[in-house]
Parts: sequence; structure tokens; C-alpha cells
Amino acid sequence: MDQSLLRHATRHCPFLKRTPVRSLRQLSTTSVVGTARSPSAATATSGSALVAMARRCPIMHDAVNARAASASQCTRMHSTRSEAAPQAEATPAATAPVTADTPSSNNTFDYEGLYGDELNKKHQDKSYRYFNNINRLAQQFPRAHTANVEDKVTVWCSNDYLGMSKHPIVVDAMKQTLDRYGAGAGGTRNIAGNAALHLALEQELAKLHRKPAALLFSSCYVANDATLSTLASKLPGCIIYSDALNHASMIQGIRHSNARKRIFRHNDVAHLEEMLAQEPKSTPKIIAFESVYSMSGSIGPIHEICQLAKKYGAITFLDEVHAVGMYGPRGAGVAEHLEFDANAATSRPVLGSAVDEVDIVTGTLGKAFGVVGGYVAGSAALVDMLRSYAPGFIFTTSLPPSVVSGALASVRHVSTSNVERLGQQRNTRTLKARLAQLDIPVVPNPSHIVPVLVGDAALSKAASDLLLTRHGIYVQSINYPTVARGEERLRITPTPGHTDAMTDHLVGALESVWRDLELMRVSDWVRAGGRAGVGLGARHVVCALYTPCPAFCAMPIVL
Amino acid sequence: MDQSLLRHATRHCPFLKRTPVRSLRQLSTTSVVGTARSPSAATATSGSALVAMARRCPIMHDAVNARAASASQCTRMHSTRSEAAPQAEATPAATAPVTADTPSSNNTFDYEGLYGDELNKKHQDKSYRYFNNINRLAQQFPRAHTANVEDKVTVWCSNDYLGMSKHPIVVDAMKQTLDRYGAGAGGTRNIAGNAALHLALEQELAKLHRKPAALLFSSCYVANDATLSTLASKLPGCIIYSDALNHASMIQGIRHSNARKRIFRHNDVAHLEEMLAQEPKSTPKIIAFESVYSMSGSIGPIHEICQLAKKYGAITFLDEVHAVGMYGPRGAGVAEHLEFDANAATSRPVLGSAVDEVDIVTGTLGKAFGVVGGYVAGSAALVDMLRSYAPGFIFTTSLPPSVVSGALASVRHVSTSNVERLGQQRNTRTLKARLAQLDIPVVPNPSHIVPVLVGDAALSKAASDLLLTRHGIYVQSINYPTVARGEERLRITPTPGHTDAMTDHLVGALESVWRDLELMRVSDWVRAGGRAGVGLGARHVVCALYTPCPAFCAMPIVL
Repeated sequence: MDQSLLRHATRHCPFLKRTPVRSLRQLSTTSVVGTARSPSAATATSGSALVAMARRCPIMHDAVNARAASASQCTRMHSTRSEAAPQAEATPAATAPVTADTPSSNNTFDYEGLYGDELNKKHQDKSYRYFNNINRLAQQFPRAHTANVEDKVTVWCSNDYLGMSKHPIVVDAMKQTLDRYGAGAGGTRNIAGNAALHLALEQELAKLHRKPAALLFSSCYVANDATLSTLASKLPGCIIYSDALNHASMIQGIRHSNARKRIFRHNDVAHLEEMLAQEPKSTPKIIAFESVYSMSGSIGPIHEICQLAKKYGAITFLDEVHAVGMYGPRGAGVAEHLEFDANAATSRPVLGSAVDEVDIVTGTLGKAFGVVGGYVAGSAALVDMLRSYAPGFIFTTSLPPSVVSGALASVRHVSTSNVERLGQQRNTRTLKARLAQLDIPVVPNPSHIVPVLVGDAALSKAASDLLLTRHGIYVQSINYPTVARGEERLRITPTPGHTDAMTDHLVGALESVWRDLELMRVSDWVRAGGRAGVGLGARHVVCALYTPCPAFCAMPIVL
Repeated sequence: MDQSLLRHATRHCPFLKRTPVRSLRQLSTTSVVGTARSPSAATATSGSALVAMARRCPIMHDAVNARAASASQCTRMHSTRSEAAPQAEATPAATAPVTADTPSSNNTFDYEGLYGDELNKKHQDKSYRYFNNINRLAQQFPRAHTANVEDKVTVWCSNDYLGMSKHPIVVDAMKQTLDRYGAGAGGTRNIAGNAALHLALEQELAKLHRKPAALLFSSCYVANDATLSTLASKLPGCIIYSDALNHASMIQGIRHSNARKRIFRHNDVAHLEEMLAQEPKSTPKIIAFESVYSMSGSIGPIHEICQLAKKYGAITFLDEVHAVGMYGPRGAGVAEHLEFDANAATSRPVLGSAVDEVDIVTGTLGKAFGVVGGYVAGSAALVDMLRSYAPGFIFTTSLPPSVVSGALASVRHVSTSNVERLGQQRNTRTLKARLAQLDIPVVPNPSHIVPVLVGDAALSKAASDLLLTRHGIYVQSINYPTVARGEERLRITPTPGHTDAMTDHLVGALESVWRDLELMRVSDWVRAGGRAGVGLGARHVVCALYTPCPAFCAMPIVL
């Protein structure tokens, strides 16, 4: 295909015009120009990247398909816009009578071709995901079997942070509820699916967050999506201020609300204030952020953001998904942790505390609480409005009674027991200290997440695979788009169930993998100018979010 | 407030300009014009409908609140746009110095006021929902206790259509899985939450629908939303053709895709074809519809729609949520039922059958299968694309192992046993026949749904309340917005667990309620010209969707 034709095509074709000519030339290395009778053309039809694009073209794809399907037939096609299809003029098909691309035109869109193309994109940019078959064994926590039940590995990356998923208090509650109330709720909350258990759990969650009310959802993905989209679409002229690292569920909720959106740099309150100050105080505003950011373990500046909200007439929406159960004297999250002693002394809201100042909190029952489901807590009127208007709440089967009862048992236990939290924190501190000694790079943060920086997609996957196959350790590699390219990592999550021997084994395995794959150490990142907070020298001043405990005083705090 | 002022205000105020002047005059019947010191003004502030609107106004709401909060203080407010607030000029506050509505303005939006207003709307149009406390007892199915555990009622409206929620095969599987794998999955499908059980259930569901692949979601709400929004946003220039009675989850999915949408009249294939014919065949199109429409029990014309799809180059998206488990030789739904014998003879796709022709099917594990969760089934590439791109699948904790194992046991049982389906259909036929004898109006339909028409919101709720309090029968009233105003109904869903004595009791209770509340009978609806299909004389010709069974031959078929 000559270059002037390609240029002409790219100028007029809506598909091709975004693609540089050089790329097109590369894509067409496997020739698609030839007669339909030529076997090589038929091969090219199914193979070349340019043909893959042509299959998405409403004008060309019929011709491409017809050639592929029947290389022995000379198929005619219809087209008015030959410029939209760079290959057309060079093929015999282009000599067919030209008819209008009207309702009578005979070419059907190639749906399967598009699905294939979308998957190819994932393969090409290495973001295609292969799920590991991991079956977490309750009696041998944190061990799991793989596809082969005899093949056991130690799980170091689950979000069952406290091991509550296997806690007898949770499992027994669920089994008893199964016997009493059966497997499913049998309806939406409005129709046959609203039981005393649902109401009790909502009351317990409201109490946990010291808010007047709470509402259950199928998941916190749905809770975030439904709350933000419903709330922001109700507030006239609302603007949502969203932290740059917010979770996909919040991003979807914001998008679905059709409200205006302003993204502030991660945890950058100055940037947030700059944007808030541009709007009248009377304009409804929601500041949406998280307390623990899942992939970096960084902590949102709750007090500072609440102060800005007050100053500029905004309300705050805080996602405590990775923090509930984990922080604070009762496990209500980071907000509760900030006034630890005052909150420990009373179960009521402490005036001026972070818990008191945050307007809306969302949380999950599927991570530290070990079951599944999500919720929102806030004022009675807010929660009632969501209950009355959010389609994602109204039009779905409610959580099974057994799930609700397991979650209720878990929340009650975790809010009165520090044992799991202390065990988790002890193991996190130990692991962070051990890795620091070995110069293995952990993204510095004050939370329970241990993100070990690899900095390359293929190497990160290779490290994860080596850990699994050679060392019997399961740590999922976290690649783009979950983290930025170049910041690929192994996200390790210690639990109270990991023994010292398991930690030894993990540390040894990581050292071995780092050596075998020649992965970069902290000192290498220092020389490279640092990345993702690693090797940057001066660390952010952050409070380490550990539960006050005398036994821990002697332990070094590694952020 | 004089009319010219109101006209002026409505011309300029973005809130008021959509409201006819006559409505505004009615809204302001309770005067809001008066001094802040007047107690009547304070009362009006919290009460009148016009004030409720003013509280949503960024300019006026501060003044309204200030007057309500402190009737003894003369509060000044800031405003530049007095025309936006019809009351302003008549209040002392309007004489305050006028400042620009700039970032420095001091009035914060009244969030709580708005929540209250939104709830008031629900109270005013009688669509505010009070959830009944219903605790379905597995050992006494279909009985449940209310808030008082001693107070038992018979549930006649759950979506646990086959009673699988209490089936020992399901409950036992869940209990065993709880012991073996614990309460929660512990992560997303990509991170620690992908177990052999999830893969096995997806394989079973693909097999059920005779499709190459299936994918699990938290719910079918999420499955519909995620599938439609992801798919339609990937297809360039896609148009979605949506049945007018489609479920909220599909409507959300369509909205979230930002694709063009065409709504065709319910089950009206001529209307659908008219719209399809307006577009080039090459334009990607999705026809989205249901097999059993939940509130009317009507059945989508699957074959006719698939034929149109073929003719106009569209793909079909069929929601079988209320049909899976219920129809067809293996319980795959209405599509499988249409070629009953051919499908019974093989487990592979039958060429040209509805099952074969439908491109994408969604279903739930939370209704006839008795547990919770949703899924989509379709081509391997489609399912892999959704797996790779749909945020609602990717970024959420996967279903608990126990839920998956319960659903797997249920699907396997229901796909090999006709006992539950036959029992359900027998009870549906009996109930429809009995109600027809009593002239009690059932919206005619060929499915398992028994929608008893009341035709008035207050009366429908009263009938539901009477059934519960006087007769110990729980049937939820279905009001706007779930059904159209004037088509309010009691939606009754017989199960195989309802005994003949229970049916007798229900029929007697309905007769009593119909008499006590003087509700309209079929003959009344005939005289009134009919409504919602009741009393229209000539019924649609529909096939009664009953499983072929010699024992049923003698039973009358009432649609």
C-alpha cells in the first residue's frame, strides 16, 4: 500500500485518522493487498494487525470476512466511502458497483472480531490477566490449595486481613443461620428480602461509625457507585472533588452522576483547596477520598480535608474499605484511629473528631470482616434518601441471611477485640523491618499494606510466578492499569495468621527471587532517582497507624 | 406574591422556569411572605412546598434556613439574583446589602434540607417505602416470622420461586464449604478470590445455556449493568434497542454506556423493526429484552426478536433472570423452553433454536436457584472481554465460596429435576384458576407470576396490610415507580412449597379483602374499559409455559 493512499485514508477514516502513518505501515507489513483467490491474502486476512482494524470498519469488514471465509470465491461488496478503507482500492472488490450505505446495505458489524481486537489490545500491552486458581483453606489459614488439591501454597496477598473469614465465630454464625433461614434472601429489601438480621447489621455498622444510620449493599463497589451517583445527581450543580488515586468504584459513581468532577493530586490538600476556592461556597460539593489507598498503603489526610470541606461548604465522602476492622479502638477505621484515646473512652461521637467531622463513610464486609458486602453510613436523612432512590440498592436481591449474620458476628467481634489487629500489625512491622534490612524496596506507607516495588510488568509477573512455583508462596503481581506503568509491584498483606516461620520463608523467597531476577533494591532506586516513593530519601512525615500496645514499644517502626 | 413577580422569577430562575405559574401559586398557598419574627412564617418555612423548593436554591436556602432556625433573629443574607428567589423581595432579608455570589460568599448549601425534600417527595406521591420485617424460615418454608419471632406469616411474594433456598442439597453444600473454605473469598477474582468453585460454576452455567462461556458477578443487577455498559461502549456508534418494560439494571447499563438508545413498545416487534430499519445494517446494534417480565409475567418474543436481529445486523441481549430454573427441560429459561423436546434430547445447542440464536444471556442465582449472585453467558471472546474490561467485575470482592457452592448445587439439581418446576406450575395454575372463578383480576400472562390488579396505590397497600395483619399472609404491594400509576398490584408467586391448604387460605383471604375494601373485580374492569390487560376481552395469543406432564392435561390453563 503506497504512502499517499495511506495518508489519504487516515485523513478521512474516523478509525485510522488517530493512527500515525508510520504505525499503519508497520501494521500492514503482512500484506493485505492481493486478490481474493490468493492463499496468502486469505492468511493475511485472519492475521495482520491492519486487517484486525479493518474488521472493525463498517465499510471494510464485510470484504475482509468474505475473503477469509471463502478464498475461492470472488465476493463483491458495497461501499460508498472507499477512502475510509485504505485497502479497498487495491482489491478487486473495490471494483464492485458502489451503492449507498443505507439501511439496505448488507454488511453486518463483526461483533466477534471486535471482541477479539479488544482482547488483543490487552495481550499486546501485557495487561491481559490470567487468574490463579487459589482455594483458601479455613482450617489451614493462610494456606490454600491450587487447581490440584494436593498442591498447597501460603497466601500472602488476600484482603482477608485479619483472617476473620475462617474465624469460628463467623463460620458458626453462618452455619446456624443457614439452618434457620436458608441460603438466599429470596427478594429485594422491599419484597421479602428485609429481615431482622439486615436491620441489626445496619444498626451495628451505624454504631461502629458513630453515625445515625447505615445501609447495606451487595458490595462496596455498588455502595460507592450508588451513593456517589445518586447523591451527586440529586445535588443541583454539584461538583465532586476526587483524589487522583480513588478506587474504580468511586470513579464510576462520579461518572454515573453526570456531576462536574475535579481531580486533585493524591493527598494534596493545597491542590484541593486551590480548586475549592474557585467556586462559590453555596455550590454543593462532595470531596471523595479514601483513608487507606489499597495499592500504595498511603493514608488520606482526613482532618485537613474535613477542615477544607467546612471552609468551602463541601461534604466529605470517605471510603474506609481497606481500613474498617483494622484501625481505631473499635476497628471503625482510620478516622476512629486519629482520636484513639478519646474514641476508646466512649462509643458516642467525639465532638470535632475525624469520625464526627466526616459526613459519609463507606466500608466493606469483604476484607477485614472476612465475608462479603458493602455499606454506607451517614445521617438518617442521607441514608433514607439513598434507600429510597438508589437503583443499585432498590432493584437487587438483598444479601443472604447467612452472609449478614456472619458479617454481624465479625463486626461485633472485631469491635471488641484487639487481638487480631495487634497480631496483624506485629507481622506487618516485622516484615517491613526484615525487608528494609535486605534492601528490598517497599513503597513507604504507615498502613498494613506492604507494596514491594518491582517497577516492570514482565518482571513483576515473573517474580510472582517464581514465588508460586518455586517457593509455594502466592503474591499476585499488580500491574497496569491498577498501578501506573513502571510502578508494578507485589502487594503483600500480612495477617495475624502468618507465623514467624512463614515470614522467614517469605523473606528468604523474596531475597532469592530478587537475586535470581536481578531486581532493583532500594539503593538501586536511590541511584535511579527513586520511584513510587522508594529511594526518595526524605520520607513523608506520617503517623504510623499502630494500635497503642506496650509490647510493641521496642519494635522499630518502618513506614 | 403577585403574579407578575412570579412570572419574572420563573423566566430567570433555572429551578422555577420549568414550573407553570399556576403550580407555583398553588405551592405558595401557605404563605412564606412575612417577617422572620412571625411564628407563622417559621411554620411556613418548614412546611410549604414552595419553601421546599426555595431550600434547594443556592441563593435562597440560607435565608429560609436562618428564618426556620432562629425566628427571633433578623438574619441577613447575600444575594445578587433576587429574581431567582420569588420570595426574596417581600422579606426583610431582601433589604440586606447585596454582594456578589462569588467564592467568598458565606452561604453553605443545605445538604440535609435537600435530603429531607427528596424524602418528602416520596411521601407526597405515596412512593415512600416501608420495608416489612420478614424472616423466612428454612424448616417451615414458605412460613416466616416477623419482627416478633412468635408471629408467623405465610410468604406468597418471594422470588425463591422453587424453594431452593431451603433445599438440603443447597444448605448442606454451603455448610460444608464454610468449613472447608471459610466465609469470604478474600479478594477480587484477580487477587486471591478465584477458586476452583468459581470456575466450576461458570462452566456449569455456560453448559446450562449451551454457550461457550459464562462469567459470575455479585448480582444480576451488576451483570446487566456491567455487560450492557461495557459492551455498548466498546461497539463504535452502537445503538441499543430496549423494551419499554426492561428492568432498572438494564436501563442503568444502557445509560452508563452512553450509547444511543431506542425504546420499543413492550413486546412490540413491529415497532422494533420500524426502528431497526432506520439504520444501516453495518451499525452495531444491541436488542436488549427479557424473557419473563417480573411485574406483569409477560413473555418476550424471543424468536421474532432474534429474526429481526439477524435481518438488521444486531445482537441480542436476553435477561432470563425470572426464568432461569423455571422453564425448559433443564431449567435454562424460556429460550430453552421454546424448543422443549429438541433441547430435552440433547445438551448441545440445537441449530436454529432460541437458545442457539440468542447471543448474550444473563441470569441470577438469587431467585429460582435460591442463593445470590448473577452471571452472563455468551461467546468465549465476549465473556473474556467482559472479564478483562468491566469495572463492576474486576474491582470487587468475588462471591464467597459457600455462595458459589450452594449455587452450583442448586443449578445442578434444578437442571436434572423437574419436580420443583412441576410443583410450582401446578400451584400457579390452581391459583390462577381459583381467582378467575372468584372474578378477582389477575393480569393475564403465560408465566409463573400472578399479578393481582388493584389499580390504586393506597388501596393496594391497604390490601397488602390487611392480608398481613388479619390473615397472616405476606404479599408485598407493588406501587409506582415499579409499575405505572393506576396499575398497582399484589404480585403473588406460588412455590412448590405452598400446600393446598395454604392456597385455600390465600384465596379466601383475597376474597375477604376484595369484599372489605370493595376492590374492583374483572367484571368491573370490563365495564371500566380494562386496565393492564385485565378486562380487555380478547387476550393475546400466548403459549402457556408449562412443562409437558401427563398429570396436568386435565388442568385448565388460565393465562
